[in-house]
Amino acid sequence: MNVSNSTATRKSKFAFRQDSVGYNPDRHHNSDVKIASLTYNEDESEAYRAHDASTHYKYRGTYWNEGKREIMIRYIQLALIGLIQGSVAYFCNVACHYFVERKFERVASILESGSYFFAFLSYFGHQLTFAAFASLAVMIEPMSGGSGIPEVKCFLNGIDLPRINDIKTGLCKVIGVVGSVSAGLPVGKEGPMVHSGAVVAASVTRSSVRDDKARRDFVACGAASGVCTAFSAPIGGMLFAFEEGASYWSQSVTFRTFFCSACSIATLYTWNSVGSSFGALGFDKLFSFGNFIFEGMQASYSVWELLIFVFIGCMGGMIGAIFNNTNEKLTHWRIKHVNHSKFRRYLEVLCISSIVSIVCFGIPFIFHECIQVPDTDGMSQQQVELINRFVQFGCPEGQYHPTASLFFTDGNDAIKLLFHMHEHTFPEKALLLFFVCYISLATVTYGIAVPSGLFVPSLLSGAAFGRLFGNLIYKIIPDKVAFSNTYSLIGAAAVLGGMARMTISLTVILLEATGNEQFVLPLMISLFCARVVGSLFNTDLYHIHIHLKPGVHFLDGELRAISGHHDLYAGHIMSKDLVFIRPIEKVATVYDLLATCDHAFFPVVDTEDRDILYGTVSRHILTTLLQQRAIGVAANPSASPNRNIVQNHVTLEPNCNYVPLVPYKILEREYPAYTPISEIAVSDNDRECFIDIRPYCNTAPHTVQETTSVRRAYETFRTLGLRMLLVVNKYNQCVGTITRDDLTAEALAQDMITKGKNL
Amino acid sequence: MNVSNSTATRKSKFAFRQDSVGYNPDRHHNSDVKIASLTYNEDESEAYRAHDASTHYKYRGTYWNEGKREIMIRYIQLALIGLIQGSVAYFCNVACHYFVERKFERVASILESGSYFFAFLSYFGHQLTFAAFASLAVMIEPMSGGSGIPEVKCFLNGIDLPRINDIKTGLCKVIGVVGSVSAGLPVGKEGPMVHSGAVVAASVTRSSVRDDKARRDFVACGAASGVCTAFSAPIGGMLFAFEEGASYWSQSVTFRTFFCSACSIATLYTWNSVGSSFGALGFDKLFSFGNFIFEGMQASYSVWELLIFVFIGCMGGMIGAIFNNTNEKLTHWRIKHVNHSKFRRYLEVLCISSIVSIVCFGIPFIFHECIQVPDTDGMSQQQVELINRFVQFGCPEGQYHPTASLFFTDGNDAIKLLFHMHEHTFPEKALLLFFVCYISLATVTYGIAVPSGLFVPSLLSGAAFGRLFGNLIYKIIPDKVAFSNTYSLIGAAAVLGGMARMTISLTVILLEATGNEQFVLPLMISLFCARVVGSLFNTDLYHIHIHLKPGVHFLDGELRAISGHHDLYAGHIMSKDLVFIRPIEKVATVYDLLATCDHAFFPVVDTEDRDILYGTVSRHILTTLLQQRAIGVAANPSASPNRNIVQNHVTLEPNCNYVPLVPYKILEREYPAYTPISEIAVSDNDRECFIDIRPYCNTAPHTVQETTSVRRAYETFRTLGLRMLLVVNKYNQCVGTITRDDLTAEALAQDMITKGKNL
Repeated sequence: MNVSNSTATRKSKFAFRQDSVGYNPDRHHNSDVKIASLTYNEDESEAYRAHDASTHYKYRGTYWNEGKREIMIRYIQLALIGLIQGSVAYFCNVACHYFVERKFERVASILESGSYFFAFLSYFGHQLTFAAFASLAVMIEPMSGGSGIPEVKCFLNGIDLPRINDIKTGLCKVIGVVGSVSAGLPVGKEGPMVHSGAVVAASVTRSSVRDDKARRDFVACGAASGVCTAFSAPIGGMLFAFEEGASYWSQSVTFRTFFCSACSIATLYTWNSVGSSFGALGFDKLFSFGNFIFEGMQASYSVWELLIFVFIGCMGGMIGAIFNNTNEKLTHWRIKHVNHSKFRRYLEVLCISSIVSIVCFGIPFIFHECIQVPDTDGMSQQQVELINRFVQFGCPEGQYHPTASLFFTDGNDAIKLLFHMHEHTFPEKALLLFFVCYISLATVTYGIAVPSGLFVPSLLSGAAFGRLFGNLIYKIIPDKVAFSNTYSLIGAAAVLGGMARMTISLTVILLEATGNEQFVLPLMISLFCARVVGSLFNTDLYHIHIHLKPGVHFLDGELRAISGHHDLYAGHIMSKDLVFIRPIEKVATVYDLLATCDHAFFPVVDTEDRDILYGTVSRHILTTLLQQRAIGVAANPSASPNRNIVQNHVTLEPNCNYVPLVPYKILEREYPAYTPISEIAVSDNDRECFIDIRPYCNTAPHTVQETTSVRRAYETFRTLGLRMLLVVNKYNQCVGTITRDDLTAEALAQDMITKGKNL
Repeated sequence: MNVSNSTATRKSKFAFRQDSVGYNPDRHHNSDVKIASLTYNEDESEAYRAHDASTHYKYRGTYWNEGKREIMIRYIQLALIGLIQGSVAYFCNVACHYFVERKFERVASILESGSYFFAFLSYFGHQLTFAAFASLAVMIEPMSGGSGIPEVKCFLNGIDLPRINDIKTGLCKVIGVVGSVSAGLPVGKEGPMVHSGAVVAASVTRSSVRDDKARRDFVACGAASGVCTAFSAPIGGMLFAFEEGASYWSQSVTFRTFFCSACSIATLYTWNSVGSSFGALGFDKLFSFGNFIFEGMQASYSVWELLIFVFIGCMGGMIGAIFNNTNEKLTHWRIKHVNHSKFRRYLEVLCISSIVSIVCFGIPFIFHECIQVPDTDGMSQQQVELINRFVQFGCPEGQYHPTASLFFTDGNDAIKLLFHMHEHTFPEKALLLFFVCYISLATVTYGIAVPSGLFVPSLLSGAAFGRLFGNLIYKIIPDKVAFSNTYSLIGAAAVLGGMARMTISLTVILLEATGNEQFVLPLMISLFCARVVGSLFNTDLYHIHIHLKPGVHFLDGELRAISGHHDLYAGHIMSKDLVFIRPIEKVATVYDLLATCDHAFFPVVDTEDRDILYGTVSRHILTTLLQQRAIGVAANPSASPNRNIVQNHVTLEPNCNYVPLVPYKILEREYPAYTPISEIAVSDNDRECFIDIRPYCNTAPHTVQETTSVRRAYETFRTLGLRMLLVVNKYNQCVGTITRDDLTAEALAQDMITKGKNL
């Protein structure tokens, strides 16, 4: 198909290629998947400005003006997001708790009768049923599998993954995670809660939000609210959204996130206080992982123990790096051999559920051991209550089975036991066994077709590791070091930090989930070391999984140093295949262009005036203009726009027959799903007409000079949240475009190799 | 003086005014003070690129390459900053504690002998001496007065206040604040600690840092470390730097701040553990405001009490707004009547110190009351120790004086008493008296010529207010509400939040200073309400004081809504008085330009090629080029640069006699204080030579189209940390510049009024 622009005078000596619209848009990757990007900067067209001014002036002078109205609606929506996400998290907790309790109650009653075999059968059956149920949710909506954090990160980074924020995805995720947690798989519900928060935010604001930027800000609030409800950690949630999520962050978004988090945690507390007298709230309800109570000196740490915490942090970093590496290789294998068939994915879940059941029942069965329950004298209220969480597993009354208390119980209970019981509760053998088996199971599990968070398994295995370490240290220097439950907290942080490589947000999340600020410095130190050591080997697990998604080009916070040494300029890395349009264009050209080229934005080039860049126009505006038949016959087809120097107001010439403006409200009406060009019919008569794009052009697009360094281009692109950055020469003629695809590490590496040849 | 460019062909029809360099650069403000700005974006000249590439390639292939070397040095510096600031904070604490203890010991011993009059004289004399000493430090270095937080905020915003980061300023600040705290003035040492952290950071890195951006990042780390050591709040410090300070924040800066905070808090803890056995650290050393111990139900709060906290938050917002308003008016008066004379400033300090002494001694004397010291049964260790902090003030053994325990003691002790003793410790009358008097004194004191933080006085009066409220609530609904010490924490947060309008960082600082995470939601709620209510009336106190500084143009996080409605474009607000230079320029022109125009950057305009914008060059590069005599006689004076389209390499023509390049190392050698132009002599012979600016030009400056909305121009300017934003028309001809002065609220308001006339 040839849509070449024969009426245009081609004065330009540059390689404009309006006639080559059928080229391969993905020059660096041969993947078939084409993931769209989001646009996080505002429109600057005349149409938008007119719309904005009219809404502004409509209420000007009245007390209840447009700005106040908007703020009010926004905060009502944020409160609603907090309310819904708080309730979702509460009911998810209740459901998981209910199912897990029932499961263990039944199995325990069979165990009491002495029949290990039937107990195992009952346990196995329960777990398999729940796993099958969880996987069913993922079969219905594949986007609901996994943790959800990589997907939310992608969205906040500006990648438009399909169906990521749909209500269906959210429902499948929440229902599925109840199944997978109840199935006793080594998964947590924290990642899925983040995703659920994002879905809630997107759903609540779907009808009112009209642009990508506003949507992103709400989703960031929702994600923060998700973390907040998952761990009862409102500040941690905000910091998570800041550290992990947002490429761009402003004070007003911080403030909104703060409000949304407060609402969601208030909702969660209110639900948690149901049943208590008059809304009173016990400490056990406030902290997800139990309260690290202030005790005598030995519950705290000495300053010199910080050195031991440095070592634990480094170990955690290495454990995390091994975990990430193994899981990456497994995921590669999975993509190749399992993921292409729904049946195989389902079968895999059932297999892994079976293995988990066999390990969790078999190991306590083989390594049978009974220990006297410690005396409750001098214990805190919380510890006395925790004693009830010890598992007997065939041990006589008054004794407990240490291995079973870790394997054969709910993950949250195991974490609390590891965090809060004092030394000698768990022998080293039980801790070592549990650590090795559980982390191996977690490595295999993350990535199968169930909703699965990574926080609880990492924390649990880390807590066992830390406690083991603490026990050993205690044997070497007794009476000088902190209790081993302190070490279990540090170990948990180190292993989780080694996987997720977060620092500030994890510190705060763990502080808020355990209630005691005295551990702020040890946590900071171990998380810092875990991150530094882990980063020597590989990147965090979320990034690994993002990079394994086909067609996704995630932009990291900073450009890697190797590309930053000014070896590359914007002119080297840009796509030179430029598809442009003129300010006043033939309908036939516009239509054919849209039909053959899938770009989301087009530069508008004034071929009548030195080929300079006039502005940009988005695909959906062109589509809507065609749909609205905003076309006409020009009085003088070759008339060029009036070239006044300060081009503040593009004026239509009086003697032309173009149809009037399409208001901005109509242009944005279909957001975010616009009618595709294939559904718009243009008659042969219309094809000869002209379309005036000038009022809808963004006449101040973001541009960089071709001599700009890649580092600056990258910074501009990412900081301002662009979808397309135009590269101009010094005459302001557009010579190329930079999109997300051109800024990935792979694309830049290739550009560095072919640099000489490209010029 | 006329330096008009007669050799240039003036083809342009735009109002270039190279001949009008003597115009008033400050078009919106008539102040005489000219505060320079900082540049937070990187150089992109050929000279810099050559330098960067050469350092990069020098070590390429070796293990210990330039990047690793830089990172290593940076982290050593950060550790050093933490170490020094931690030690400064510790010794400052120790000195304050020592002086205050001695003062009260002596006065108490005279009181015991029964002589109120001599006790008062001794008290009065001590306080006056310390106040005179504190004020002396400010007389030596005026920049060390006040809190220091506004100054640090200005620096991070890009305003180059003179002497702000000098060692002398830091020393005067730290020594002065010991004096002012010992003088019993209603001031805290937290603000000065922030300033001290910034000074430490700037001093440690002075020799290695070669650009404003790196310096800013270090100062941000230092400020965070200052907050961190002031409150023992490492996470709070980071969030403070994020929320209050930085206009720009990146993940790598977050990580560095995290490291620096960890180092400083580790240093502080290590110093604090001196004297304990083997580095052990008690809880009393961990938390600045004492540890909110987990107790039974009533120490916590019920969910429905959150509504009461909303009310307290709103009240705190109003109190803060009144405080800010009164202090603003007082400061206006002070600027007019006091600040112009050093003698008057000194006298003012002595007067206020006298008033403080009279009030703090007089009120306990007039309202004499003795209460039985409560029984220590069932008290926590901390409360038992706090009982020793009760002040007798003439009461018999076993009794204490409630009013004196608030007025006649160290501020930190009073806060701890208010925070941790249970109900009935302070009668309502004492609390009301203390609240009213203390906040009035604080209002008068903030702004006098002593180093003075605002946190402790706000927290202290807020704690009294909250406790008063708690006592009243308890009378209405006894046994249902939390203890009044919980209310005192919420009240303290509300009043401080009402003044400083911080949310997330204050929440975390208060949590870290009191050690108990259970109050996260109440604190969030009250701080949110305080900010919202306070913002209805005025802005925060730091902003008020920033705006009172002459010549300072602070750029807020977001443009005010009124300018944002696309009524204004970049073309409306820009300065049209353009002073430009040509790529190859006569020495005479350059010299005269530098001598008569104080701009820091000059656009380089290629008058031989359609007047397009060639790049920008900074003042100090031109000065250095003249100093280095990088001049020569052109083979062909009118030779214009080789116009190849992709201008990646500006090549010197072979037949020209220009002297070779001045390396970048020489250009940056004098940073940050460059030789002024007046000290450079240029002979009459040299004046006729030419200077080739092209290799030193930034050929990819940040530009905006004149049709760009103000909102976007503002965002670009602030997000990228620019000093000058060039405005170009669609042919890439420079038509104006936007600097910090053009983007203030006042300048924009004026532009809106004169919009039509300007065009």
